[in-house]
Amino acid sequence: MLVELEEKEATLINVGLLIEALKTENLDRFRAEFTELHPYDQAQFYTHISEELRAVLYRYVAPKEMAELFENIEIDEEDYEKFLAEMDPVYVADMLSHMYADDAADVLHELNEEQASNYLTMMDDEAAQEVQELLGYKEYTAGSLMTPEFISVEANATVSFAMKTLKQEAPNAETIYYVFVTDTNKKLLGVLSLRTLIVSPDDAVIEDLMDDRVVSVLVTEDQEEVAHKMRDYNLLAVPVVDEKHHLLGIITVDDIIDVMDEEASDDYSKLAGVSDLDSVDKSPLSAAKKRLPWLIILLFLGMMTASLIGQFEETLSQKAILAVFIPLIGGMAGNTGTQALAVAVRGIATGDLIHENKWKLVMREAGTGLITGAICGVVVTGIVYVWQQDLLLGALVGASIFITLIVATLAGSLVPLFMHKMKIDPAVASGPFITTINDIISILIYFGLATTFMHYLL
Amino acid sequence: MLVELEEKEATLINVGLLIEALKTENLDRFRAEFTELHPYDQAQFYTHISEELRAVLYRYVAPKEMAELFENIEIDEEDYEKFLAEMDPVYVADMLSHMYADDAADVLHELNEEQASNYLTMMDDEAAQEVQELLGYKEYTAGSLMTPEFISVEANATVSFAMKTLKQEAPNAETIYYVFVTDTNKKLLGVLSLRTLIVSPDDAVIEDLMDDRVVSVLVTEDQEEVAHKMRDYNLLAVPVVDEKHHLLGIITVDDIIDVMDEEASDDYSKLAGVSDLDSVDKSPLSAAKKRLPWLIILLFLGMMTASLIGQFEETLSQKAILAVFIPLIGGMAGNTGTQALAVAVRGIATGDLIHENKWKLVMREAGTGLITGAICGVVVTGIVYVWQQDLLLGALVGASIFITLIVATLAGSLVPLFMHKMKIDPAVASGPFITTINDIISILIYFGLATTFMHYLL
Repeated sequence: MLVELEEKEATLINVGLLIEALKTENLDRFRAEFTELHPYDQAQFYTHISEELRAVLYRYVAPKEMAELFENIEIDEEDYEKFLAEMDPVYVADMLSHMYADDAADVLHELNEEQASNYLTMMDDEAAQEVQELLGYKEYTAGSLMTPEFISVEANATVSFAMKTLKQEAPNAETIYYVFVTDTNKKLLGVLSLRTLIVSPDDAVIEDLMDDRVVSVLVTEDQEEVAHKMRDYNLLAVPVVDEKHHLLGIITVDDIIDVMDEEASDDYSKLAGVSDLDSVDKSPLSAAKKRLPWLIILLFLGMMTASLIGQFEETLSQKAILAVFIPLIGGMAGNTGTQALAVAVRGIATGDLIHENKWKLVMREAGTGLITGAICGVVVTGIVYVWQQDLLLGALVGASIFITLIVATLAGSLVPLFMHKMKIDPAVASGPFITTINDIISILIYFGLATTFMHYLL
Repeated sequence: MLVELEEKEATLINVGLLIEALKTENLDRFRAEFTELHPYDQAQFYTHISEELRAVLYRYVAPKEMAELFENIEIDEEDYEKFLAEMDPVYVADMLSHMYADDAADVLHELNEEQASNYLTMMDDEAAQEVQELLGYKEYTAGSLMTPEFISVEANATVSFAMKTLKQEAPNAETIYYVFVTDTNKKLLGVLSLRTLIVSPDDAVIEDLMDDRVVSVLVTEDQEEVAHKMRDYNLLAVPVVDEKHHLLGIITVDDIIDVMDEEASDDYSKLAGVSDLDSVDKSPLSAAKKRLPWLIILLFLGMMTASLIGQFEETLSQKAILAVFIPLIGGMAGNTGTQALAVAVRGIATGDLIHENKWKLVMREAGTGLITGAICGVVVTGIVYVWQQDLLLGALVGASIFITLIVATLAGSLVPLFMHKMKIDPAVASGPFITTINDIISILIYFGLATTFMHYLL
């Protein structure tokens, strides 16, 4: 494995050298190279070597350095337990104490409660308390993402005092680019960027410089909404407050980028009907385990479709050619439904779809279904007529496509809107699900029409 | 329309007051409220009012203020032309001159060449030149995203000199949180965060403080790769260099968040078979226009499926019950194919799928197909046997599902990998496409088996 890293002239990290140094237990050579790496690259190296080599590495890398590495690590949830089990518990506790509280809480979230509380008792008291508080917030809320390590000053302070505070707290603060302004009761009053601070005279008072229309989020707010706010307002950090507007913590942009990545992958995987996009290096068995639930559900839904068609066996045996168009009509219904669903789900996810234009969207989709249905219906009628020399059959298939497309497009937008209203994640009404629903609708329409007009067809 | 904005106590922007002030042409009242808003909220207000009210607004808001508003606007590509056409050309040029060069270039990108060059000739010379250079870079590359407005010092400067430079350039720089260090020929040597600068003594030399393992991107690099680097290394800004490592510009994290949003929506919409997720307030006609191309392509692919089934009309009229299972088998093939595709496409998009583990992925998917195929195959055989009291029919459908799932899962991972190799965006091999391909494969397998074993079935 070669990790690429751009330097003065783009160079490659010498993975061979690092491994060699670990194998020969050459501490100096290893550290000379390793400590020069970006923590992300350190983490890449760390996760890709063998357990034996990692055992040497733990002796060569201090808990404080490992803390930085773990803040930049990208591993699956189940791997946290594995890696931590390799280390000495005291080493783990020391590492966790050195991590930013929000990152440490993320790690402990992946462990079972007993393990987590064991590490907490061994941790540095102050750090443990900060982490403990964060663990109390529900997952996927602003509270679970925030860190209490921010810089704040009171409104009546001067610029020079604020700069002094900032320099003192810089080593521990997760960002120093915003200074948050509070009253004596820790109520958030405003925000000041380091930019403003730097270009202002030393004796200016914070209250006069600060922006008092500060965008903040509630501690209970959903992480997706936090992400929208930070994106819309181009924020590097957002303050988190309680109901009474007391400042509790901040959320930094790097955590939000991870959230956006997660949410996007999540919506995407649901559209594809996978509970979770398994990473590339998982085993076939673990991949199969994640996909089977969906496949089995869809299998039973497919069986319903089959039994529905079974009701029309009589019709089918009278005119076998009807069977030929089943996948076409079902497929078109599924496709148009997925298109409409995607627009609605993304609209809900990105916050573009607000209350008053939901009805507008449904009307729009009805219109869209009408147009696409009419055009596809006419095209199909023509093709079937030319191919089978049977205008009535063509008209039957065309009419089915026309009605199906209207109904399926509407269903594609109504189902996610309805689920959103019921407070179910609309992405669950994913591609395969809406496809199967529309399959059933399309078959009812097609065979309904066919059975009704059968005596003309024969 | 009510725009929400959190203040000391969460308040709502008084849209009614703003509109009233525009209607009654009350300049002072309008500006008192409007200039207090975050540019994002200003943009929200601006895009939602009528053209008549906007005409008043242009008189009340200076081009410099409008520049900030346009840096935070979220509108569809085609709307740029509309809004700019409402303004006086001199006003537009003035506004563009005040925008960050990268944002101005983004606006001009949406216009036709003649319009763009008209505005460029009217713009402030220096600004026009900066924007012109950016327009020369290909879309979706690092060059098209970067801004030349960054802060740099030479390596032999002192901290106090760097701070002086920073204070001077702060009003124009897009970020002041990184200072880039170059040699006398503008070659990038390192980077220094404002954080380090602030906690270092005044007479320290930059060269001793800077981080010389700076992560940079090539000007020709794809924007998606830039996004991965910034996410992985938690960067607020990344320097952009040419082949000889000369510093050309920087890309800031807010632009990258927009890119990530775009790319995620793009992959998602392709999986759903929409060329582009139309926004909620577009007309049915414009929505239909975007979806029809896909629907028509899929219609013709569906016709191929139909004509393929037509080849087996003989088989079908001998045993009509066979038709009942067509949607089930096709549906299962489509679903498993989409699942495999999603894993591969996201793996490619997020950069997790690197060269050496592609082969591993394909082998894994073969294994996954084998496991899911075997389980679903057995379940189906059982259900069909119980339902139709026909073990042979059950075995036929079960065997078809088994083979289909293996082939479809493999196709779902091979197709995007192949497209990526051919330098085609693998997301194009979207859900509906892979579904239709797998429809055809499944029918060949199902009717191939049925025709072969027909004399046992009758």
